[in-house]
Amino acid sequence: MENVKQRRTIRKYATQDIAPDLLDELLETSCRASTMGNLQLYSVVVTRDKKMKERLAPAHFNQPMVTNAPVVLTFCADFHRTSVWCEERKAVPGYNNFLSFINASTDALLIAQTFCTLAEEKGLGICYLGTTVYNPDLIIETLKLPKLVMPVATVTVGYPAEHPAQPDRLPLEAIMHEEEYHDYTRADIDRLYAYKESLPENDFFVKENNKETLAQVFAEVRYTKKDNESMSETFLNTLKKQGFI
Amino acid sequence: MENVKQRRTIRKYATQDIAPDLLDELLETSCRASTMGNLQLYSVVVTRDKKMKERLAPAHFNQPMVTNAPVVLTFCADFHRTSVWCEERKAVPGYNNFLSFINASTDALLIAQTFCTLAEEKGLGICYLGTTVYNPDLIIETLKLPKLVMPVATVTVGYPAEHPAQPDRLPLEAIMHEEEYHDYTRADIDRLYAYKESLPENDFFVKENNKETLAQVFAEVRYTKKDNESMSETFLNTLKKQGFI
Repeated sequence: MENVKQRRTIRKYATQDIAPDLLDELLETSCRASTMGNLQLYSVVVTRDKKMKERLAPAHFNQPMVTNAPVVLTFCADFHRTSVWCEERKAVPGYNNFLSFINASTDALLIAQTFCTLAEEKGLGICYLGTTVYNPDLIIETLKLPKLVMPVATVTVGYPAEHPAQPDRLPLEAIMHEEEYHDYTRADIDRLYAYKESLPENDFFVKENNKETLAQVFAEVRYTKKDNESMSETFLNTLKKQGFI
Repeated sequence: MENVKQRRTIRKYATQDIAPDLLDELLETSCRASTMGNLQLYSVVVTRDKKMKERLAPAHFNQPMVTNAPVVLTFCADFHRTSVWCEERKAVPGYNNFLSFINASTDALLIAQTFCTLAEEKGLGICYLGTTVYNPDLIIETLKLPKLVMPVATVTVGYPAEHPAQPDRLPLEAIMHEEEYHDYTRADIDRLYAYKESLPENDFFVKENNKETLAQVFAEVRYTKKDNESMSETFLNTLKKQGFI
């Protein structure tokens, strides 16, 4: 529990490599995560090669973690392997549909997160890249992912070369609901976001972006309606191309 | 690491309750999981009330864990709270789209899985219910989830009253790819699935279902094309109803 309490995302890594045996043990143990019908609907592509990292980097907006980390892991929702198994065993697979993507994506995220927790316990640092779902096509092409395989998470891993401050979190009350969802009044929002909005780094963030409120930085700069709509279209087109719609 | 290596899903629970302080600590610590832009795009609904469990049970095909566990947690992708925050802070939220569902769903699954790992470390047993995405409407109605909130995972939790055998997993080679995705030949499938197919419990499973192969049990009985297609339609309709499409 203490490891998770103290965790912070690590974006700068020492040059020290990760021993293949340790990486294998971490991934093998992560496979103990819950999985639908014990089908393990995921694949993990391990990138250690410098050139391959450089090819992946643009998909992640060239964030330096991708080329600087000794290991980059791309976790994929994978119904391809299970479908090949079915075909080789006189069974007709029926997994070229949206729900199957959701099921496989869930499996992939559970193993990805288990990996992160275990890696940190072993003294490694990780950065979880949400960019994977923004530019899936380049990742699919680079890693040669076949139909019914979709990248859903990228994790960069290495020994930490920094110890950043731990970011804030909302109070538990903000995310926990007893028996039924309680909606948020204006007073709730004021109370629950007060600490976050009072932090000097967030105040700096607002000023740096010439905005009036922190929420405006998110809605108008970082995660805009226009970008979300455009990336929704890309993602749905890619799901179609990969055979999940 | 050892806890995860030894883990098994627990479906039978002792009557002992989970202390509210422990549950709070587990959920609060789980919030340390990575989250998009530190927005924490999730909510967790805690069900302890017997009647509420009975109302949720049919959504999970009346699996007994739901009514027998002291605590049932429904993890939801939640862009509602963030959108209310934006509206209260002169920002126009743009999260009524598919990509925002994917982002929030990812956040929710990362906290759900972190919770599972931490709960097991504290001696609790969990069962991860994939059924959440099969029947989302009943869950939404029961838990009164507003628009831009979608249930994505249910976890039953309690002190274990059983110690089942640990299920098999595929060899690491089956899910790990070096640099590029390697496709599976017939020989690969034979080798990778040999152990699973050789297990007496799986052999029993095949005979019990009057099938010839284990893959047929999955493709023709447990997770059929017809069910997947019908549930895909339900899920997409619910996403529309919740404002994510």
